[in-house]
Amino acid sequence: MIKKRIAILGSTGSIGTQALEVIEANPDLFEVEVLTANNSIELLIEQAVRYQPNAVVIGNEAKYQMVADALSRYPIKVYAGSKAIEQIVEMETIDVVLTAMVGYSGLMPTINAIKSKKVIALANKETLVVAGELITALSQENRVPIIPVDSEHSAIFQCLVGELSPIDKVILTASGGPFLHTDIDTLKTVTRADALKHPNWSMGAKITIDSASMMNKGFEVIEAKWLFGVTPDQIDVVIHPQSIIHSMVQFEDSSIKAQMGLPDMKLPIQYAFTFPDRVKTDFKRLNFKDYSTLTFLEPDTGKFRNLAFAYESMRQGGNMPCILNAANEVVVEAFLKGKIGFLEMSDIIEKVMCRASFVQKPTLADYCETDTAVRTLTTSLIR
Amino acid sequence: MIKKRIAILGSTGSIGTQALEVIEANPDLFEVEVLTANNSIELLIEQAVRYQPNAVVIGNEAKYQMVADALSRYPIKVYAGSKAIEQIVEMETIDVVLTAMVGYSGLMPTINAIKSKKVIALANKETLVVAGELITALSQENRVPIIPVDSEHSAIFQCLVGELSPIDKVILTASGGPFLHTDIDTLKTVTRADALKHPNWSMGAKITIDSASMMNKGFEVIEAKWLFGVTPDQIDVVIHPQSIIHSMVQFEDSSIKAQMGLPDMKLPIQYAFTFPDRVKTDFKRLNFKDYSTLTFLEPDTGKFRNLAFAYESMRQGGNMPCILNAANEVVVEAFLKGKIGFLEMSDIIEKVMCRASFVQKPTLADYCETDTAVRTLTTSLIR
Repeated sequence: MIKKRIAILGSTGSIGTQALEVIEANPDLFEVEVLTANNSIELLIEQAVRYQPNAVVIGNEAKYQMVADALSRYPIKVYAGSKAIEQIVEMETIDVVLTAMVGYSGLMPTINAIKSKKVIALANKETLVVAGELITALSQENRVPIIPVDSEHSAIFQCLVGELSPIDKVILTASGGPFLHTDIDTLKTVTRADALKHPNWSMGAKITIDSASMMNKGFEVIEAKWLFGVTPDQIDVVIHPQSIIHSMVQFEDSSIKAQMGLPDMKLPIQYAFTFPDRVKTDFKRLNFKDYSTLTFLEPDTGKFRNLAFAYESMRQGGNMPCILNAANEVVVEAFLKGKIGFLEMSDIIEKVMCRASFVQKPTLADYCETDTAVRTLTTSLIR
Repeated sequence: MIKKRIAILGSTGSIGTQALEVIEANPDLFEVEVLTANNSIELLIEQAVRYQPNAVVIGNEAKYQMVADALSRYPIKVYAGSKAIEQIVEMETIDVVLTAMVGYSGLMPTINAIKSKKVIALANKETLVVAGELITALSQENRVPIIPVDSEHSAIFQCLVGELSPIDKVILTASGGPFLHTDIDTLKTVTRADALKHPNWSMGAKITIDSASMMNKGFEVIEAKWLFGVTPDQIDVVIHPQSIIHSMVQFEDSSIKAQMGLPDMKLPIQYAFTFPDRVKTDFKRLNFKDYSTLTFLEPDTGKFRNLAFAYESMRQGGNMPCILNAANEVVVEAFLKGKIGFLEMSDIIEKVMCRASFVQKPTLADYCETDTAVRTLTTSLIR
C-alpha cells in the first residue's frame, strides 16, 4: 500500500484522537498531513508536536497566536478560522480527508475536499443529513469515494464489498442508548449526566445526546439513504443492545450479510483509511463466551419521536433534513446547558419542522440560509 | 446472465430436489442438463419427465430397464452404473455440476467434472474430507471454481466476496443438533428416530445422523480447511441453536463478517448457480421479531467426540480424514439399522483411526484402497 497522507478535521475529538492512534500504530502506511480543531488548543498543540503535520488550523481565530507561538520551533504551518479549515483540504499533499468535526460545520470543508478529489473518510454524518443530494452528486461528478466511518455505515459498506446485486434493504442496528428501558414519564426528568452515560460507546457530548434521543439513529437512516442509494422503505432500524452486530444488508435473494465485532471506532476509522485492503490489528477480538446472547427488538418511535421525524424529513425531502439538523443542534446545546428537558428537545424540533420555510429543491445557498434561519427560529422557541 | 446448463448428481435427494425447485423458479437462467440418482427410480423418472434433461443416469444398473422403458417416449438418453455417473459430467453441454450425492461416491464424479472444467457446486462434503488436497490442487490446475453449497461454507464464501486480505479465522456455526442438551448417559440409549429429528434443517438420513453426532460439523471443519486455505487453528466452531447466522469470517483487522437468514438450503444452492450475481427470490425473509434472541455456546467435545476426531484427523493429515469418513459411513449405516448404539459410533471410529494403515502422502489409488480397507475393518468391529 502506498503511504497515505491524511488530513484530520476535528483531530481533538473522540474520532480524531482515535484516528491518530490508528495512524501511530501504522507508521509505514499513514502520515498526518493536517490537523484541525475548533477550540482545544492544548491538545492540538500536543498532537502537532507529536505527529509533526505539514499544517494545523485552529478554528477559533482568537487562539491563533497561542498555537503559532507554541509551534514556532517546528516546520509546521499554522492557520486560523473556519475559512482556513474549508481551504486547507485543497492542499495537494493530502490523500484522504477524515471529516470528524461536529455538526453542520462539516459541510463546507467536505464539499471542498470532494472538489479537490480527496478520498473522504466521512465521520461527520450531518454533512449527508443536511445536503445528501448535493454531496452525493458532487462525489459522483468528481469520482471521489465517500467511505463512511460511522460504525453502522462502515458495516454496511463492508458488507457491500464485491457484491454486484441490488440491495433489498439495509438494517441499521441501534444500541437503544441509556434510556432504552426508561419509561416516558421518567424521561421528562432525566438529566444531562444521565443522558451522557452511553452503555457501549465513548463519544463526544453532542453525539452522545443524539444517541440517547435516537436522533443519531435518525441521522444515520438519512445518511444510509444517500450513501447506499436506498429509499426510506428500504431502511430498517433494529435495537440490538449489545452493539456486536454493527449493521446488516439484505440482498434481493434474501441473504443477509452482517459486520460484527466488539464496539471499537478504531476499526471503521482504519478501514476507511485502508479500503479496499485491511491491515492487521491487535484490537481485542470478539469472543462469544463473553457475548453468549445477542438480542433484538423494535424501536419505540412513540417514546423516541426523533427517529420518526427523521423518516418524515426524508419523505418530505428538500431542505427538511437540514431543518431537522439545525433544530437538533440548537436543542441539544440547550439541553446540555440545562435550559430544556430531554423530551422538550423533540417537542421543539416538531414545531420547527412545521414552521420553518420549506424548499423543495435547495441550492447550497438555500442550505446555508435554512441553517441560519432555523437556528434563530429554534432559539426563539426555547423559553 | 447466460443460461446455465446444470447437471445434478443426486437429484432425488434433499439437495437435488431443492435444486430443481430453484431451477424451476428461474427458467430464464437455468436448464436441467443431466439428472442422476442411485436407486429412487420413481422420483427420477418423474423429474426427467418434468424437466426434460438431455440425459439421466441411474446408479443401480439393475434398474436401468425400468427407467429406459418409462422414458422411451422422450428424447432423453438413459445410462446406468456408477461409471456412467463418473463419465456423464464430461458432457460438453454441462456448465455447472451440482454434486449432491451421499458420501464417498461423490469423489470420482467430482474429479472428472473438474478435469472437464465444469464449475462445481459442491454439496458433497465427503469429497473434500476424503481427498481435499488432491481436489484443491486439481481445481487450481484446471482453474475451476468450487462453490460450496453447504450453508456454512456458502456463508463464508459470501463473506469473502471482494475481500483482498488474509483470513484471521473462520467461525462455523452449528445448531448443536437434537442432542445439544441431552446428557451423555441418555445419549447411550437414543434411537434412530430421536437422532433423525433435526431441529432446524430437513435433510437426508445420513447427514441428519452426522448432524446429531456432530460428525457433520467435523467434516465441515475439514471442508473449510481446503475451501478457504486455513489451518485447523484458524477454524472455530460455535454452537448457535437458532441457525440464523450461517457462519462467519474474522479478518486480520478484527472485523467479522457473517451471513444470515432463515434456514433454507435453496439460498446457498441458488447462490452457487448464480455466483457472482444474486437473483431475486421470494424466499421467506428473516424478521427479528421472530428471532429476538440469538445464542452462542461452546461445543462439548467430551460429549461429541467426533468433532475432536475431525480436528485430530486434520492434524495428522494424509489419508486420516479418508479413514475417518469411511469408518463413519459404516457406523452410521449400522446405527440406522439398529446394530449399534449412538455413542458406539464414536467408539468404533476411534478404534479404526488407531488401527487403519496411515499413508502420509496418498495418491488417488491410496484413497480408494483406504476407503475399501477401512470399510472392511470397521464392519469387522461391529458386533
